[in-house]
Amino acid sequence: MPPRAGVDLGGTKIQTVVMDGRGNVLGQSRVPTPTDGPKGIVTAIAQALGAAADEAGLATDSLVGVGVGAPGGIEPDAGVLINPPNLPGFDGEFPLGPELEQRLGTRVQLGNDVSVATEAEFRLGAGKPYESILGVFWGTGVGGGLILGGKQWVGRGSAGEIGHVVVKVGGDRCPCGRRGCMEAYAGRGAMEAKARHRQKKGEKTRLFDIMEKRGRERLTSGIWARALAHEDKMAIDLIDQAIEALGAGVASCVNVLDVEAVIIGGGLGIRLGEPYAKRIAKAMDPHLFVNDHPPDITVATLGDLGGAMGAALLVKTRG
Amino acid sequence: MPPRAGVDLGGTKIQTVVMDGRGNVLGQSRVPTPTDGPKGIVTAIAQALGAAADEAGLATDSLVGVGVGAPGGIEPDAGVLINPPNLPGFDGEFPLGPELEQRLGTRVQLGNDVSVATEAEFRLGAGKPYESILGVFWGTGVGGGLILGGKQWVGRGSAGEIGHVVVKVGGDRCPCGRRGCMEAYAGRGAMEAKARHRQKKGEKTRLFDIMEKRGRERLTSGIWARALAHEDKMAIDLIDQAIEALGAGVASCVNVLDVEAVIIGGGLGIRLGEPYAKRIAKAMDPHLFVNDHPPDITVATLGDLGGAMGAALLVKTRG
Repeated sequence: MPPRAGVDLGGTKIQTVVMDGRGNVLGQSRVPTPTDGPKGIVTAIAQALGAAADEAGLATDSLVGVGVGAPGGIEPDAGVLINPPNLPGFDGEFPLGPELEQRLGTRVQLGNDVSVATEAEFRLGAGKPYESILGVFWGTGVGGGLILGGKQWVGRGSAGEIGHVVVKVGGDRCPCGRRGCMEAYAGRGAMEAKARHRQKKGEKTRLFDIMEKRGRERLTSGIWARALAHEDKMAIDLIDQAIEALGAGVASCVNVLDVEAVIIGGGLGIRLGEPYAKRIAKAMDPHLFVNDHPPDITVATLGDLGGAMGAALLVKTRG
Repeated sequence: MPPRAGVDLGGTKIQTVVMDGRGNVLGQSRVPTPTDGPKGIVTAIAQALGAAADEAGLATDSLVGVGVGAPGGIEPDAGVLINPPNLPGFDGEFPLGPELEQRLGTRVQLGNDVSVATEAEFRLGAGKPYESILGVFWGTGVGGGLILGGKQWVGRGSAGEIGHVVVKVGGDRCPCGRRGCMEAYAGRGAMEAKARHRQKKGEKTRLFDIMEKRGRERLTSGIWARALAHEDKMAIDLIDQAIEALGAGVASCVNVLDVEAVIIGGGLGIRLGEPYAKRIAKAMDPHLFVNDHPPDITVATLGDLGGAMGAALLVKTRG
């Protein structure tokens, strides 16, 4: 079975992998996401794929195909990206699939980033022992992926928006504009906005010192982890609120879906790891209707490569 | 195809139907649920089935089988009811299936009341045009049933507990003991407790006058409807809160599942009907993540017979 490649197209980085038919990663490469629009992104993807193929000792056009996981709306058959959020310079629709096919000389298949990352954990990662899982991708936002009875559930195309489960009617404003969403408390984007606001009001925190020392412009997951390690009060308080919201929102989903396992991924989920997955499980407990039979709560095992590996799974290896 | 029968075993009434293979109701009967425990219930079910069969011009033992929808836990293969809530005199397990089979001389199949009512709406009622629906049973509690891709989704056996989706972290105490559940605001049980409490504190309401005039001990759906028609302030306020909670909780479910339609049933859902389904749809709108593509929101069309019809569907007509 010839190797295939996967691309995780994110707002800040492009991660690529070359993977064999058994899900082993043969090569990988990561580059920052260009901010000059679609053409720059096509070039960056091609370069990152070239580097991953090099590491695998392969030429790009010997790959059986390339899968791309992208944020937002997708027309998978046409290979079209529709208004992807967090990708600067993309307005309206862009035929990323056809453009990449021309550049790479191999088939390209598009999928939603959260869906493919969930599929990867299900088939190759922490979800392997289960038939029904909820993937919780705790990062800038909070995304969700569902495998029910061994299959992706996407509804009419937009299922899994667990970040916008309401945990507090009339609560905090979410970056999506609505009120009381889980993401308004647990999304890294919302948390950063709150931290900036509280600092401006005079509250002390080391979050932004750490950010500057590390030459960043955003509070990355690593910065949150460091601030927690330094017992920064504001970071602790905001993470506590995030965990309380995740507990309520994820428990709500479990009450409705009764899945076997919840897999915690995403930048914050992976960076904070098992101790925080345990804290989320504990925060879920008071809200679980069948609390003598909770689902397993576990951290995604594919780490930062999960999205790209899931994208590679989009490439059909038969037929 | 020989006729089959269905029983909706509720806390206050037992509804039976005899139904042909096409889902037409040939006869039906309703009796109050006895409060003297399992033996009394077996007798009452047998009598009500006899009356429904009479109306259909049939003998009970000529039925191809009888399905029973019951609250709480079920062991369908053994025909055992496990700690059914709201059924007085039931402690632990009771072999309702075998007991009824002996009494009736025909096969008996048990199922969960909410699951069978959802199946009935899906196959015979308001859910017919769809492949994925969320059934919302708005009554004493708020139950939920899921059809995804044309099939019931029950998870590990306890899916659909939408009444215990958290709409307000730290919010009102729910009859289940937890805080902030949708049912703490929208369940008729919780609403009655709040009404009694507010009346005790001196607030005026006609709810309990109407109850007494109608010789009831509980605030039934009909009493709520009458109080609303009389523009009773407390009734209006509590129903407003219920609708706000339903809007948030059901929208949360739609954000996660992206079903095609939400079917509103249950005592209050059916009694208050289309105008209140529209109000729930409006209350969902500010919380729907994809709000330019909302699901259809519609009232259950099988009315009070849905549960018994769904129970009849448990009887396999082939093999």
